Amino acid sequence: MTAAQLTLVQIDNYGPWTVTPEPRREMDLQTLQSRLFADIAQYIGNRGGYVFFTRFDNMVAVTNGLDRRDHELLQESVGNRYPVTVSLGVGVDEVPIDALETATERVQAAGSAQSSDRSEALAGEFHDGDPTDEDVHIAHFDVNDATGKYTDRLNEFDSFINIEQGYASLMKYMREEHGALSFFVGGDNVIAACPDLSHDDYMGAIDHVAADADVQLKVGVGSGATPHEAGFAAKHALEDCRYEGTLVEFA
Amino acid sequence: MTAAQLTLVQIDNYGPWTVTPEPRREMDLQTLQSRLFADIAQYIGNRGGYVFFTRFDNMVAVTNGLDRRDHELLQESVGNRYPVTVSLGVGVDEVPIDALETATERVQAAGSAQSSDRSEALAGEFHDGDPTDEDVHIAHFDVNDATGKYTDRLNEFDSFINIEQGYASLMKYMREEHGALSFFVGGDNVIAACPDLSHDDYMGAIDHVAADADVQLKVGVGSGATPHEAGFAAKHALEDCRYEGTLVEFA
Amino acid sequence: MTAAQLTLVQIDNYGPWTVTPEPRREMDLQTLQSRLFADIAQYIGNRGGYVFFTRFDNMVAVTNGLDRRDHELLQESVGNRYPVTVSLGVGVDEVPIDALETATERVQAAGSAQSSDRSEALAGEFHDGDPTDEDVHIAHFDVNDATGKYTDRLNEFDSFINIEQGYASLMKYMREEHGALSFFVGGDNVIAACPDLSHDDYMGAIDHVAADADVQLKVGVGSGATPHEAGFAAKHALEDCRYEGTLVEFA
Amino acid sequence: MTAAQLTLVQIDNYGPWTVTPEPRREMDLQTLQSRLFADIAQYIGNRGGYVFFTRFDNMVAVTNGLDRRDHELLQESVGNRYPVTVSLGVGVDEVPIDALETATERVQAAGSAQSSDRSEALAGEFHDGDPTDEDVHIAHFDVNDATGKYTDRLNEFDSFINIEQGYASLMKYMREEHGALSFFVGGDNVIAACPDLSHDDYMGAIDHVAADADVQLKVGVGSGATPHEAGFAAKHALEDCRYEGTLVEFA
Repeated sequence: MTAAQLTLVQIDNYGPWTVTPEPRREMDLQTLQSRLFADIAQYIGNRGGYVFFTRFDNMVAVTNGLDRRDHELLQESVGNRYPVTVSLGVGVDEVPIDALETATERVQAAGSAQSSDRSEALAGEFHDGDPTDEDVHIAHFDVNDATGKYTDRLNEFDSFINIEQGYASLMKYMREEHGALSFFVGGDNVIAACPDLSHDDYMGAIDHVAADADVQLKVGVGSGATPHEAGFAAKHALEDCRYEGTLVEFA
Repeated sequence: MTAAQLTLVQIDNYGPWTVTPEPRREMDLQTLQSRLFADIAQYIGNRGGYVFFTRFDNMVAVTNGLDRRDHELLQESVGNRYPVTVSLGVGVDEVPIDALETATERVQAAGSAQSSDRSEALAGEFHDGDPTDEDVHIAHFDVNDATGKYTDRLNEFDSFINIEQGYASLMKYMREEHGALSFFVGGDNVIAACPDLSHDDYMGAIDHVAADADVQLKVGVGSGATPHEAGFAAKHALEDCRYEGTLVEFA
Repeated sequence: MTAAQLTLVQIDNYGPWTVTPEPRREMDLQTLQSRLFADIAQYIGNRGGYVFFTRFDNMVAVTNGLDRRDHELLQESVGNRYPVTVSLGVGVDEVPIDALETATERVQAAGSAQSSDRSEALAGEFHDGDPTDEDVHIAHFDVNDATGKYTDRLNEFDSFINIEQGYASLMKYMREEHGALSFFVGGDNVIAACPDLSHDDYMGAIDHVAADADVQLKVGVGSGATPHEAGFAAKHALEDCRYEGTLVEFA
Repeated sequence: MTAAQLTLVQIDNYGPWTVTPEPRREMDLQTLQSRLFADIAQYIGNRGGYVFFTRFDNMVAVTNGLDRRDHELLQESVGNRYPVTVSLGVGVDEVPIDALETATERVQAAGSAQSSDRSEALAGEFHDGDPTDEDVHIAHFDVNDATGKYTDRLNEFDSFINIEQGYASLMKYMREEHGALSFFVGGDNVIAACPDLSHDDYMGAIDHVAADADVQLKVGVGSGATPHEAGFAAKHALEDCRYEGTLVEFA
């Protein structure tokens, strides 16, 4: 049975900070945000987890394999090296959106995202019991022949619009139908943290996006004790789609 | 008259590299992409330009103020420090999408994004003549009370869906109606490189997104010789919206 | 009984790379080196280890708490994100220099530092058995009132010469007398991985540097199962020196 | 005539910050320091300057080609992205140590390195008049066959001791005899900012280090309007030494 551990990473009081005492240089903010994400990606990633940049001031991570102490140390290290701090909320559930609901509530309970009183809150529940190979399900989507259809043919913004409309359609469908969380991760790739779904469920999502946004996706699916294990299997399954010419492959 | 200089930054042969000899760890790819973007943001940003991560393997920059030599040096520095190289295309036009069209064609003409033969192409036309305060128009949108309506109330993914659907709607409208390029830059912020647009044009965009995606935007608009100057003025104008309770302000 | 695990991190074939096809920009090399060190510092540091930049193309780490799998993953992650790869050798001994001797021999046995044939070698012996609080001894030295005597009074280079001559004297003495490895870590700080030494041993070192280089040091000493535990205790002991006006304090 | 512009970069109130409210994790401090240096290396380096990490909390840069506005922007960007700020002092002189003396005095006059009152001071005099090809002289030293003699034969710490003793000897000699500033830059390399020196002056330095520290150096020397131009010529001259088997070559 799936038991996804989700962590919400929220920068404390970030909005006000970006305009105090006056608006800060946009490219400095972009640099700060993307480097903070990169650091967290390394920290969580080399412990087997996955993190997604989402809105950058709020990031969503799948953290099976990381315990409370790992979360505390991440918080301490960010605080030591950045001009901002982060609060962390953690939840565990069979359905990713429900785990994130818990995680978010814990952070919200500690104070507003724009409160100067809240700093480095850490609250939530961690996966206990032994990890199993069914704890995490990852689906890795990409666009069929995106380079041939878009990148090498259209201007970059029109390519991007196509990818983006496909993503907007997929993220909404997967969340509403399955409580799955889908994240654009660059290029033509979307990675989703899912409950245990069937071949037909994935075909349903692909059909929906083809009809709704006219973008043709394919998907590889894997499961494992950690996001890295599940996601690595999903990547291999997606390679199988490429060689077999299929739209859905399970590892 | 607007004269936006747009640069397409495209990683050479990135797709194949990410799966050779077998798929690379996802969090290493995320780290590489976001740090490369951060470095380019610093380089272009402290010369007065703006860059947007777009799809990460393809980034779009507004580079008024940067000449051919600046572009060559960026290419050299990336090549010295990363396991990948970048090709650059440059175009100038009154309408941003047309400038990017030229920029993209130049890169495409040098070879496919997935060709191992193309490496560090640099081609295009640079802004010549004296810069003027009307060269670049930047619009900075954000969502009205996003913290109160979304971040402090919904789980993070549902907040993100709202922001994302608003963005998907805005990016498409602004491109189709005005040839403007809109980029999500984190939080609830979207920055657009625009031609010279009127108050009514911006109200039209805001109304469209409210009707289409049920997201209430406001916008500050600035112009200048460089993206930083235009964007900084836009940020101040957006602060004016906040204090005045208005939806559109020009610097 | 002390059981320090030392890791040599050596960039593969770095010298030739820096001048191929022609010399690379010095500031790009400096950036590459210091960011690679920073990444390794985060990776090893948040697992309880310490790494020192030494010559940058060769770094020395105290890695009690990191096993073979941790070393493999570090190697993989560097290879995924940098234009260079690293080889790793590991050794364990009561005396740090002997552990490093083993670690170095393992890397040397795999090929020359300037051989294009060697890539990502990993060899050595890891600490087995249960960790104990006596495994690692760390001494944290600093210069008495460096700000008052040097930084606020001399030009920066003359301040630096004083610190550097003190360091050159200390590193040689500690290695020759005790097989300890001393590393300059910035400011007026030197951190040493030591065998189990007495109060008199440390006083001997301080007296030697005072006589040989006319620099007045003090030192805090700690021990623990990992470098972080030992080093953190040493920092607190050094704070005790500061408040007590003493030259040697044990945690 | 030489006209070197030297900048002292000093982190404000860094010492106290590192131990407040209690000592911070050493590896976080190492990461912060080396990344700050890397960022400054990119900023100064891609404008033609050189910066050296020196003590990390104090860095020395040769900044011919960077004006007051460039310095202000560096300060602003660091302040936007790090938990610390930097003060900058600038001086120009025929002799590098005298330029640095001026630069340091300007920072010292603004307050102590450990004063919480001083923040982001910027003071000094900038190179005016037209740049000439004689403004900056850079000497690039390395150790003859360091890989064969040390790296592939000794344990890494003993290799490092040899390089370090050679450096300590050279830095002192060059400063005392010529007012030149020599910096270890990794591997077996030392880069020096020098006044206009002769072949015999450099042979004198090499002979001194051979006698004093038993380390055999060679050196390439270049001059230019900026450190990059001078240093790049020096690197090529050092390659000439390698091929010709000579000890001193001028570009």
